[in-house]
Amino acid sequence: MKVVIIGGVAAGPKTASRLNRVCPDSEITIIEKGELLSYAGCGLPYYISGKVDCEEELRSTPVGTVRDSVFFQKVKNVKVLNRTEATSIDRESKTVTVIDAEGKAAVLPYDKLVLATGANNVKPPIPGSDLKNILGLKSIEDADAIKAKLAQHKALDAVIVGGGLIGVEVAEAFAEMGCRVTIVEFLPQILSIMDPDMIGFVENHFESHGVKIRTNTKVMAFEGDGEVRKVITDKGEIPADLVIMAVGVRPEVTLAKQAGIVLGKTGAIKVDPQMRTSDEDILAVGDCAEKINLITGEPAYVPLGSTANKEGRVAANTICGMDDSFPGILGSAVCKIFEFTAARTGLSEKAAREAGYDVVIAHGPSTDKPHFMPDAKLLYLKLIADRKTGKLLGAQATGPGEADKRIDVAATAITMGMTAEQLSNLDLCYAPPYAPAVDNILTAANILRNKIDGLMVGVTAHEVKAMGTPGVDFTFLDTRSPEEVSAVAIPGAVNIPLGAIRNRVSELDKSKPIVTFCKISLRGYEAALILWKAGFTDVRVLDGGVVMWPFEKIVK
Amino acid sequence: MKVVIIGGVAAGPKTASRLNRVCPDSEITIIEKGELLSYAGCGLPYYISGKVDCEEELRSTPVGTVRDSVFFQKVKNVKVLNRTEATSIDRESKTVTVIDAEGKAAVLPYDKLVLATGANNVKPPIPGSDLKNILGLKSIEDADAIKAKLAQHKALDAVIVGGGLIGVEVAEAFAEMGCRVTIVEFLPQILSIMDPDMIGFVENHFESHGVKIRTNTKVMAFEGDGEVRKVITDKGEIPADLVIMAVGVRPEVTLAKQAGIVLGKTGAIKVDPQMRTSDEDILAVGDCAEKINLITGEPAYVPLGSTANKEGRVAANTICGMDDSFPGILGSAVCKIFEFTAARTGLSEKAAREAGYDVVIAHGPSTDKPHFMPDAKLLYLKLIADRKTGKLLGAQATGPGEADKRIDVAATAITMGMTAEQLSNLDLCYAPPYAPAVDNILTAANILRNKIDGLMVGVTAHEVKAMGTPGVDFTFLDTRSPEEVSAVAIPGAVNIPLGAIRNRVSELDKSKPIVTFCKISLRGYEAALILWKAGFTDVRVLDGGVVMWPFEKIVK
Repeated sequence: MKVVIIGGVAAGPKTASRLNRVCPDSEITIIEKGELLSYAGCGLPYYISGKVDCEEELRSTPVGTVRDSVFFQKVKNVKVLNRTEATSIDRESKTVTVIDAEGKAAVLPYDKLVLATGANNVKPPIPGSDLKNILGLKSIEDADAIKAKLAQHKALDAVIVGGGLIGVEVAEAFAEMGCRVTIVEFLPQILSIMDPDMIGFVENHFESHGVKIRTNTKVMAFEGDGEVRKVITDKGEIPADLVIMAVGVRPEVTLAKQAGIVLGKTGAIKVDPQMRTSDEDILAVGDCAEKINLITGEPAYVPLGSTANKEGRVAANTICGMDDSFPGILGSAVCKIFEFTAARTGLSEKAAREAGYDVVIAHGPSTDKPHFMPDAKLLYLKLIADRKTGKLLGAQATGPGEADKRIDVAATAITMGMTAEQLSNLDLCYAPPYAPAVDNILTAANILRNKIDGLMVGVTAHEVKAMGTPGVDFTFLDTRSPEEVSAVAIPGAVNIPLGAIRNRVSELDKSKPIVTFCKISLRGYEAALILWKAGFTDVRVLDGGVVMWPFEKIVK
Repeated sequence: MKVVIIGGVAAGPKTASRLNRVCPDSEITIIEKGELLSYAGCGLPYYISGKVDCEEELRSTPVGTVRDSVFFQKVKNVKVLNRTEATSIDRESKTVTVIDAEGKAAVLPYDKLVLATGANNVKPPIPGSDLKNILGLKSIEDADAIKAKLAQHKALDAVIVGGGLIGVEVAEAFAEMGCRVTIVEFLPQILSIMDPDMIGFVENHFESHGVKIRTNTKVMAFEGDGEVRKVITDKGEIPADLVIMAVGVRPEVTLAKQAGIVLGKTGAIKVDPQMRTSDEDILAVGDCAEKINLITGEPAYVPLGSTANKEGRVAANTICGMDDSFPGILGSAVCKIFEFTAARTGLSEKAAREAGYDVVIAHGPSTDKPHFMPDAKLLYLKLIADRKTGKLLGAQATGPGEADKRIDVAATAITMGMTAEQLSNLDLCYAPPYAPAVDNILTAANILRNKIDGLMVGVTAHEVKAMGTPGVDFTFLDTRSPEEVSAVAIPGAVNIPLGAIRNRVSELDKSKPIVTFCKISLRGYEAALILWKAGFTDVRVLDGGVVMWPFEKIVK
């Protein structure tokens, strides 16, 4: 069996390796238009920052063997044609036409063809885009160009256009290299895969490391003298010696389109769970292929190396006649921002509402270990669930605490349709160096349960703002101790410590809505229960308490 | 409604707090025989080592309020009788007799009674046990006694009797305080909740930090001159200025027994999923209560603070007439051993075999991040699954890498009945600072799948030893590069690098079994596939490769 694979970066080589294992009789050829094969593109920001010493490490096996053509031929029994471009597919005759670096064309027959053509950086038509030092970051060559520029002088002005995952990682790398960095983002926030209430901390953390965040800002033009010198936005100019375009990627589907293969509504190649395209002898894997969202069943485009590897395995199994399928994705993602982590999985609150769920959310800001452990760090955790079924739909976490662990647990839970109740009883590992006795995610699950059971009515900070003036339109009740209040307070709130509320209930106006809170709203919740019992009918608890309050605070 | 709770450390206060929230009309009394309430016993080793500054931190809320009687009364509306012992229960009249520190007795009526009597350290009848400085570690008072002794002179000889979780944590604490530490363990290994193949690394790591491990060793007597001076074992004497007895705990069930409440076969109080004992007005929670293993459905005794909290919540809900249940546990556990973590969940390989499963295991030793990241650390991961259903039964991880994250994911997967196939397609968070593109647990799940699908026949190191002499009874084939082999090799193995096997197949004897391996047995697996294709019929792959080989190695 002849298998031709177009694309040699991630999904292609993975397909080839698995194919060689399960179907050793197959004759496998990889066509790669670049020089280099099988490299870890996700490692490029760390190559730029110098954390990764040399580019060979990004394309080596764990024991240090570089994955070049010779390696693939000798070890994997896979023929590699690099610096060779596939120019067309003839589905009738089942052949691929290729042209090599010397311009020599050839026609390769296939029994099965695998498209692993990846994705391209989106290049918006901004005037001045052809100036020097306006770069993308997709290949090792791109990274080398950036490193060369940084080597000239380090304290340069770098502007990252686009505050998505790549933009954020590159911004961190540049800041660590000593650049003055600005992220320009068209949307109201960076990392728009996260809910707005989870991202303020991240933006503040960036700013605390000297990285400027310019959201709601549109790039109008680049100006310079051959080399870029400034970025012109609708909110003013930003000096720039180097611009990184990171406004997203689009699936590379030119060949597929030409061959009449069906694309999905995301613009990526439509595939079935066996990774077959509309032509059963042609499969597609990795960043060029459309995914299915596991929760909604809707098509999604989330190109990630982790998914590419899974798809490659399934594609190889399909080719070999083994029964296998790739069920889909949750959009799990994580990134490092200096001492912070931002991670997410499943549906965002907004996406869950749009999908028609009766959404209930929980904010569980707390330390990631018992508060008495000196290395305990704050973690802002948010869970999103369906009130009707209690099922977890999504989870997000930011902060210095260990976010990825909780989000990985949430991803597993969502995949299996776990409810908040089941989640709250999970037997997770507990010891003080690792987690609180009640893990952050279990605490948040209990908040979901309290809300679903009607024991707690939550209200978000934004909803509180819409309730009017505290003290006039509603009572804003801070249940912390006077010491805590004197350190940091929310304007307009009155203070009655939790322990005193039973005796001071008469001070509060029963005719007005009351919003209770404390540092994280556990005491706020207990206060609400006391007030309910005392006959108050409209008592709401501020989600996440003072810690999650994104508006003005009085700090001493 | 009058609720009396006997025990004020963990499960009792949790039950009281939840009860006060969901049933604020109830009159709640906690009876605690000690002085101190609601403290984090699990934090004691870190209090001893000085990581936790003062004992108040162990019994404070996250905002620094000490959880004393006043706190419970004022904030939680709970009456506390500390330094008061419950001496008997009269189920007929529904009363508890108590006696306070001054010897004054009282009779407390209850509508519902909650037993949260905890557990006691096992004290084996070893001659000399009454010598000074032979201590246990259960209470803050115990920890203070230990700290007082350590303060006298630091470089003392400390012997820990028992290598379970507590013993291991105390050993680390003592070593960090500068003691010469020996762990004496009756069983063939420390941490017997882990499989033997996962524990050698941990024992070596202890030894590398100067902590001596004496397994298969029985303590016969303690000797000294009023104060303990040495521990006499069946393998010789060990000098000792301080001995910590950590041979396990037993549920405190005296009161329950006297009252005729049914105990389970573990000796702990039998409870239903609503935490009710055989008397429906008496509930039991925490370390005195029996648990159910979620996988086998069998009774289990695994006393942990994390479980106590969940049970307390369910007990309170039950008392208030809410529909709730505690499904059971997986025996998840984690501990820190200097730079190592050891974590586990579900059934061990041994337990799974004893429970009658057709067990398949996977060893996935690999770095916890992409190998090119400078902070990538080795993680030894083992999965245990049922060959028939493919369902995950257990997981264990040790090493410097991030073990707890993978074990928490495994715990979630096991709880929901996830199969190896489902696990292998999990959408976990991926970015180089957090995980490899194919996370360790997904790689291990793929190994399980390969074994279940018949693509790979695994053989453990111990099974290889039983196969006879390498080179005579079987061919032991190392598929690594000559450079790797010259650095570290397994005696008796022949070396043919993976890339050369296709051309050198004729050198190998088809009539003998072949065991293939490499560093982690990925190349070993590929070699096995090549040999199968070449007509070899008995080809097995060494589970975990050189990295997991626990026997003699030739190291240059």
